[in-house]
Amino acid sequence: MYHVYLLSDATGETVERVARAALTQFKDVDVRLRRVGQIRNREDILKALDEVDRLPGIIFYTLVNTELAQFVRNECEARQLEAVDLITPLLFKLAEFLEMRPQKLPGLQYEMNSEYYRRMEAVDFTVKQDDGQEPRNLHKADIVLIGVSRSSKTPLSMYLAHKGYKVANVPIIQGIDPPPELEEVEPERVVGLIIDTQRLVDIRSARLRNLRQSPRGSYADYRQVEEELAYCRRFYRAHPAWLVIDVTNKSVEESAAEILSRLHGDIRHD
Amino acid sequence: MYHVYLLSDATGETVERVARAALTQFKDVDVRLRRVGQIRNREDILKALDEVDRLPGIIFYTLVNTELAQFVRNECEARQLEAVDLITPLLFKLAEFLEMRPQKLPGLQYEMNSEYYRRMEAVDFTVKQDDGQEPRNLHKADIVLIGVSRSSKTPLSMYLAHKGYKVANVPIIQGIDPPPELEEVEPERVVGLIIDTQRLVDIRSARLRNLRQSPRGSYADYRQVEEELAYCRRFYRAHPAWLVIDVTNKSVEESAAEILSRLHGDIRHD
Repeated sequence: MYHVYLLSDATGETVERVARAALTQFKDVDVRLRRVGQIRNREDILKALDEVDRLPGIIFYTLVNTELAQFVRNECEARQLEAVDLITPLLFKLAEFLEMRPQKLPGLQYEMNSEYYRRMEAVDFTVKQDDGQEPRNLHKADIVLIGVSRSSKTPLSMYLAHKGYKVANVPIIQGIDPPPELEEVEPERVVGLIIDTQRLVDIRSARLRNLRQSPRGSYADYRQVEEELAYCRRFYRAHPAWLVIDVTNKSVEESAAEILSRLHGDIRHD
Repeated sequence: MYHVYLLSDATGETVERVARAALTQFKDVDVRLRRVGQIRNREDILKALDEVDRLPGIIFYTLVNTELAQFVRNECEARQLEAVDLITPLLFKLAEFLEMRPQKLPGLQYEMNSEYYRRMEAVDFTVKQDDGQEPRNLHKADIVLIGVSRSSKTPLSMYLAHKGYKVANVPIIQGIDPPPELEEVEPERVVGLIIDTQRLVDIRSARLRNLRQSPRGSYADYRQVEEELAYCRRFYRAHPAWLVIDVTNKSVEESAAEILSRLHGDIRHD
């Protein structure tokens, strides 16, 4: 088993994300991530490195204070530990590009500024609107996701909410009219989700097994699901201005990226 | 205004996250991020670089295919564009450390494996339990967050859910008994949130202003809030095995990191 240490002066979120992205490129490898956050001085560093001495592994680190980053580099050299600095080269490049000195203050990405509160409000809003709960708020949503049961409306809504979008989601159920408020939403805010029939049958069957219910009912029956999806597509076609996204075999992150890129143009303007 | 281009062979989430972390170190700088995802061949690269030629800026890129990464490097040199490769150095270091070759397949971090489905299920679960909605499910939660209104229970729950934890949150309301199921939850799963009185008064007043309601009621009154928090602390003290976390002036990401580190030990074992 390999140990990968993630040293950070803040939460360690960023370094963990990068490490995970890189590690997925190595197949079937048994890696344990060990995250050490809130590193603010040399003592914290020495304590973490002592741990690495005991259980050797590779170190990835993000310390915006360049003196502390240098200290890690020197210490690792002296101890013959392998370490990769993920942030200093970037800060140097940006300093040159922006013709400006970095602040070197840890945790700035977690500053609770207006953008932070906007994101938190979006999460609050989105949780409350889940599954068509408050149709009267549909007009307040930045994005309204619609789709049949198990087309990933909820996780997709929450993922977009974390990015600062107020999302409402409304289930499409054959034989039940969607709330009239849906027709009043500006069509460029509505995203219809579509998914392959067999894929949806598989997802629903798995769900029924999880809930320890029989997969024999109409919920996961191929014919019924096919009919349901045909109904759904007809409903979308009657609203040609809605964006329709196929989520088959796409992760929530990938579907979200596609939605935002299609809604905001190919190159995104933040 | 400066342009920062984020080129990726997948969603561009990782490169955006790193770029944002680095950029927060530069104060009051007017930067526009332009994300280009799903880059899979030389044509995609040329198209993106043409865009940079038109509106010059710095390029950050994550392409796990080393030949494509090399192509970006060469093209940028020829066009005299500034570009930073965020993933290749990491892949080389890891290849050496793990004594293994990387797969070089884009998007692997979005593979829909069992871990992915576990995370999605956690999000589904957590949305449904928000605000004490289904006390009968408390025993199924990995973490039960409790706290007074506006102590960030909902965004914190959703953030932890994205990391794969099933979270339930239960409001603590003076004069109303919490659901009896709370007492039955293993105490090492319960996390009580606490927050500074003035901070909470500010947050609640802002909320009332947002809702265009008068801030004069007891909800945001200092004395009342103080009493409410005193009640909350007494309730926590009666359950000494519960973890209590002060969320004052902490972002949700920081509170989550603290909770996970306190629940799982100083160095986290994933």
